[in-house]
Amino acid sequence: LLGGIEGGGTRFNCAIGPSPDEIWARNSFPTTAPEETFARVVEFFKEGEAEYGALSAIGVASFGPVDLQQQSGYYGHITTTPKPHWRYTDVVGHLKRMWDIPVAFDTDVNGAARGEGAFGAARGLDNFVYVTVGTGIGAGIVAHGRPLNGAMHPEVGHMRLPRAAEDLHFPGCCQYHGDCLEGLASGPAIEARWGQKGETLPADHPAWTMQAEYLSMLCMNLTLCYAPERIILGGGVMARRQLLPMIRERFAALMNGYTELSAVSPQDYIVPPSLGERSGEVGALVAAERLAG
Amino acid sequence: LLGGIEGGGTRFNCAIGPSPDEIWARNSFPTTAPEETFARVVEFFKEGEAEYGALSAIGVASFGPVDLQQQSGYYGHITTTPKPHWRYTDVVGHLKRMWDIPVAFDTDVNGAARGEGAFGAARGLDNFVYVTVGTGIGAGIVAHGRPLNGAMHPEVGHMRLPRAAEDLHFPGCCQYHGDCLEGLASGPAIEARWGQKGETLPADHPAWTMQAEYLSMLCMNLTLCYAPERIILGGGVMARRQLLPMIRERFAALMNGYTELSAVSPQDYIVPPSLGERSGEVGALVAAERLAG
Ligand SMILES: Nc1ncnc2c1ncn2[C@@H]1O[C@H](COP(=O)(O)OP(=O)(O)O)[C@@H](O)[C@H]1O
Ligand SMILES: Nc1ncnc2c1ncn2[C@@H]1O[C@H](COP(=O)(O)OP(=O)(O)O)[C@@H](O)[C@H]1O
Ligand SMILES: [Zn+2]
Ligand SMILES: [Zn+2]
Repeated sequence: LLGGIEGGGTRFNCAIGPSPDEIWARNSFPTTAPEETFARVVEFFKEGEAEYGALSAIGVASFGPVDLQQQSGYYGHITTTPKPHWRYTDVVGHLKRMWDIPVAFDTDVNGAARGEGAFGAARGLDNFVYVTVGTGIGAGIVAHGRPLNGAMHPEVGHMRLPRAAEDLHFPGCCQYHGDCLEGLASGPAIEARWGQKGETLPADHPAWTMQAEYLSMLCMNLTLCYAPERIILGGGVMARRQLLPMIRERFAALMNGYTELSAVSPQDYIVPPSLGERSGEVGALVAAERLAG
Repeated sequence: LLGGIEGGGTRFNCAIGPSPDEIWARNSFPTTAPEETFARVVEFFKEGEAEYGALSAIGVASFGPVDLQQQSGYYGHITTTPKPHWRYTDVVGHLKRMWDIPVAFDTDVNGAARGEGAFGAARGLDNFVYVTVGTGIGAGIVAHGRPLNGAMHPEVGHMRLPRAAEDLHFPGCCQYHGDCLEGLASGPAIEARWGQKGETLPADHPAWTMQAEYLSMLCMNLTLCYAPERIILGGGVMARRQLLPMIRERFAALMNGYTELSAVSPQDYIVPPSLGERSGEVGALVAAERLAG
């Protein structure tokens, strides 16, 4: 039996089942203080064990920044997050104290990428990117079938990109870099620039052309950096469905026929997640399954 | 016995030896027409075989674009190059017609990365980037110990980056994208913007601050994309040694303390190649050695 946890900044989603595509029980808890949140997670899995039998591995896809280096003293922790109470929280430790079984630990976006790769929009692909455009902008990069994790995991959300022609004065809202991509095109950037949340902006608002400009440049840089077979765009901002076709169109114009990629149609190349909200928890189960052997 | 070929747009460098760090003979030929160039390459290796014994594998690190997909009809070819005579040249085929032995084929920058990884500035590292800033800007990306090759190999030289504050009018010289990185910061871009080659510009020319701005943003984006343990900057433009310290300094300012990377000193993080001109041919021998078993 496998346990999967998608630990988000807003909610923790938990699932239990014999395999990632067969979930027997799910539940979701608000992300409050770590002790309280983990108490509910533990309770969910203990009840599941009482009903279905012992867990053999748990996978976690966590909000970050997280420490993924096995040899580090903070491995398995959420580290320098600004989120109250969560700084240097030992996620893996919390679980290991309750269960003497393997615990897989990864970023939320790597989890989502793993889920989409195993059962979703990137099924069968060895090289692809999962991007979330929400409170932050982040990506899980799968290369040669494995999520990339180097000295630190990739943080493409903070890339430098050219300013859109109509966006020369907004200073950007990244606390580190000001006008990096996240500072210009995340949900909070939309709100800071236009004075209202993306959800409430009308369909003909200039925000969307600008958003498409930045996200198509992101797709261009991701294409040039990773040569992926597909880019999946998820997250709250992408709920605005008019964005996707605008991004595809602008992306094709920016690439201007460069590389064989032009052979792939943008419809098959830049796509929405097919597991929707569940990519992360499915990915956590996939990671658990690998550890369970 | 191993053969290594670095096929550049200007010269072909060939080496022969029992291992990549023991080269018994080398020679270099101008890149003229394919038939002529390959005739000289073949002659060099045939003479080497007469003297030292039969080759067991050959590695090639080639200028591009190249087709690296084994299942493609153009595998082993230089494809859509603007270089006269070289469009759709079957490099691997030329060699296979002469030798019935394994031939490894990769990009020039992957070759250089492999060489630096095995015996140079990235020795012992599993995740690093080799960048050349010359006639073009290209990079070999090593992740989990292997050069990245997706649907097409990475082309980070064409990334979009913000304009330097003092560089608002130069249109850029990339034939596909105008003001992508290569269009703004390659050797030919320097020449097009300032009206003279980089070699001839004085040390206090504003070109160098601008150059450092673009290349430090490249290092930032590469850092965010790949989380490498080291970035090696090579190529003709980097022969201008004053650039490296300027890039390191600006890079640190741009990153602004983001990520654990701040722990690595810029001197150990952004470095010159240590094999100099020979990274590519050493890398070709490393690839040959892997195939030789
Ligand atoms: N329909 C929408 N259009 C544009 N932006 C939206 C929409 N729905 C949510 N958002 C924005 O997405 C962000 C939340 O992203 P989400 O992916 O749901 O959460 P998180 O990134 O925190 O996990 C918020 O900034 C919100 O304003
Ligand atoms: N000392 C130098 N300073 C600045 N630019 C230089 C210098 N030396 C060579 N270059 C530029 O580097 C480019 C050639 O790069 P190189 O790496 O030698 O060749 P290639 O990229 O064709 O393999 C030319 O555009 C040249 O003007
Ligand atoms: Zn940022
Ligand atoms: Zn370009």
